[in-house]
Amino acid sequence: MSETPRPSSAPTTERTTVAIVGGGPAGLMLSHLLHLAGIATVVLDNREVATIETTHRAGILERDSVRLLVDSGASDRVLTEGHEHQGIAVRFGGASHRIDFQELVGASCWLYPQTEVFIDLHRARTRDGGDLRYGISDTAVHDVAGDGPAVVAFTDADGVPRRLEAEIVVGADGSRSICRDLVPDRRQFFREYPFAWFGILAETPPSAPELIYARSEHGFALVSQRTETVQRLYFQCDPTEDPEAWSEERIWERLQGCLAGDDGFTLHEGPIIQRSVLPFRSFVQTPMRHGRLVLAGDAAHTVPPTGAKGLNLALADVRVLAEQLELALLKDDDGALDAYTDRALARVWKAQHFSYWMTTMLHRVEGSTPFDEQRQLGELATLVGSRAGSTYLAEGYTGWPQQ
Amino acid sequence: MSETPRPSSAPTTERTTVAIVGGGPAGLMLSHLLHLAGIATVVLDNREVATIETTHRAGILERDSVRLLVDSGASDRVLTEGHEHQGIAVRFGGASHRIDFQELVGASCWLYPQTEVFIDLHRARTRDGGDLRYGISDTAVHDVAGDGPAVVAFTDADGVPRRLEAEIVVGADGSRSICRDLVPDRRQFFREYPFAWFGILAETPPSAPELIYARSEHGFALVSQRTETVQRLYFQCDPTEDPEAWSEERIWERLQGCLAGDDGFTLHEGPIIQRSVLPFRSFVQTPMRHGRLVLAGDAAHTVPPTGAKGLNLALADVRVLAEQLELALLKDDDGALDAYTDRALARVWKAQHFSYWMTTMLHRVEGSTPFDEQRQLGELATLVGSRAGSTYLAEGYTGWPQQ
Repeated sequence: MSETPRPSSAPTTERTTVAIVGGGPAGLMLSHLLHLAGIATVVLDNREVATIETTHRAGILERDSVRLLVDSGASDRVLTEGHEHQGIAVRFGGASHRIDFQELVGASCWLYPQTEVFIDLHRARTRDGGDLRYGISDTAVHDVAGDGPAVVAFTDADGVPRRLEAEIVVGADGSRSICRDLVPDRRQFFREYPFAWFGILAETPPSAPELIYARSEHGFALVSQRTETVQRLYFQCDPTEDPEAWSEERIWERLQGCLAGDDGFTLHEGPIIQRSVLPFRSFVQTPMRHGRLVLAGDAAHTVPPTGAKGLNLALADVRVLAEQLELALLKDDDGALDAYTDRALARVWKAQHFSYWMTTMLHRVEGSTPFDEQRQLGELATLVGSRAGSTYLAEGYTGWPQQ
Repeated sequence: MSETPRPSSAPTTERTTVAIVGGGPAGLMLSHLLHLAGIATVVLDNREVATIETTHRAGILERDSVRLLVDSGASDRVLTEGHEHQGIAVRFGGASHRIDFQELVGASCWLYPQTEVFIDLHRARTRDGGDLRYGISDTAVHDVAGDGPAVVAFTDADGVPRRLEAEIVVGADGSRSICRDLVPDRRQFFREYPFAWFGILAETPPSAPELIYARSEHGFALVSQRTETVQRLYFQCDPTEDPEAWSEERIWERLQGCLAGDDGFTLHEGPIIQRSVLPFRSFVQTPMRHGRLVLAGDAAHTVPPTGAKGLNLALADVRVLAEQLELALLKDDDGALDAYTDRALARVWKAQHFSYWMTTMLHRVEGSTPFDEQRQLGELATLVGSRAGSTYLAEGYTGWPQQ
């Protein structure tokens, strides 16, 4: 890197209206929505595009996440290449019970990997001339609480130090956010769970057309889908589990145990081409605004994967944030950014509860008593036996209306 | 007691079809239902009638408990002297949210004290010539697993030792059941809760027409009713709390704190005429049948008071048990008594979960984190904001249909 300018040289100063730190789906969607409102943005991310495109994450989109992608003109590829899921199965006691989202709430979810959402949004921003800076480094955010502009200092992909002045900085920089540390009077809320998910990709045809959330004496398992030839499967494990320590035989034995039953369901096996242990925690930081800084998505909150709320919650954040930024920047509404915290948090805590509910209803907790296990089965029986209970779950799973 | 016969004299032997140990509402209702089916019973209880009539317990009847009392011809006094409650209020964040049972599920609950249920059933059995033995002692149950009749040995109210032979013995003898210890291969399921309820009776007019279940930073409180001049109120306390250690001022201060808000609700105060700390635990024993012995009500299961399931679950037990006993005794259906366990337990575990849900949603758990508290508020907001969620709660509260 001999071309790197010496630290003593003054960095180039640029200006924008909204600097977005983090170019994942949340940051890109916000940039896209603000572009539609005529508000200039620069998106900054220290990762390479190719890295984000190949890092597998969530795969289920709520109805309104799909609407946002399609109706905003970002892409309608989810409708043609994604898979509409009109329900899920809840499996316990050796039998599956379908929760029919369409019948109960007139909504669906879509199986569409987060990597595809990223590709769609990246293409849309590129198509529309968006200012996207990937592969940067040394990112630092300054002056968010002063009278003057906020500043994002960074070294660009060519090694040139740069200084970006902005009226607003959005921290959409994920679960390892540097932005959230800039909120001085923050409150942080945590919950650790005593388990994690062991996730695999396996070369096999789908075992089911929709997701199966299974509770068994061996713990939780999730049958998901990816393509016609590769499937995504999960089972509950210890958070300290080493995924490499498991033989393929042992993995399939566990999954088969979790999904055993007497209703003819067959779990297809195949070569395991990827494996990992997913962290499992809940986190919320509030307020989501401090001076010229606002937080969105994983930077402000993390949910456990049960119920697939993470990406959807991030997209819900930026949908609200775009509205509040329009009020603040185009209508000089001073309170608009503070209102963002309240509007976003109302949904965040609903989603935290939903994720907790789905988790505790389906997982086996180490040290749980036989009473707890029977009560859990009592809950599942009540839920699938009640149209109202099933509807309540379907509302949360497909996503509450925006407020 | 000089007339007491000497132990060496052989006790008088009597015979009946069903000996019911325990003459509370469950035992009397079973006796009543079996009488209607033409099956002879004897009801035995070591308490005096006057004691049971004045021991205050639960006060909310599910729809089907009311139907059972009325439709079986026991009494329709609940309809004239009880109070129909078409909903409850769930209170948090300083405001009440009504769950409208009639609108959501077309059902009501009735405020009608357990003592009145006992009085009605006792009158009905007396009216119909029922064989009721109160004030007995030295009760012991024998020979429940043999080929011959089961035997209940006891000393009658006059001090005469007696021996009652029966085809079936029903243990409806409450939470301190002696009968449940006679099931050799039993499994017992327990859950202790880290709190209890501090209950008072106060001389004051009602503060609300329906029950208010309140969650606050001070913990749970319940505003209930009794008469036009005496009210029943509860608040969460430590299980080791000494009720006498609290001044009236301190009690009202806590209750006012739990119920504070900005919606104009006023909690009326008045002289406290009774106070006690209610135990708070969950318990289930299974199987509910062993040989000639079957268990019903609190003898087989205890629920915490949140949600008022205890008496209703006992009445649901005996409704099912009467049907199964008719099959066993009148139709020689050998499997009928075993089927009783499965039928009854399905409801028991639903009720255990419902009581747990209502409890954990509304109580403050010592050691709970700020995350837990915010998630709890997130759940309450989701619930009262969802017609489906409110309906799910209303279904459980007013009682699931008999299966």
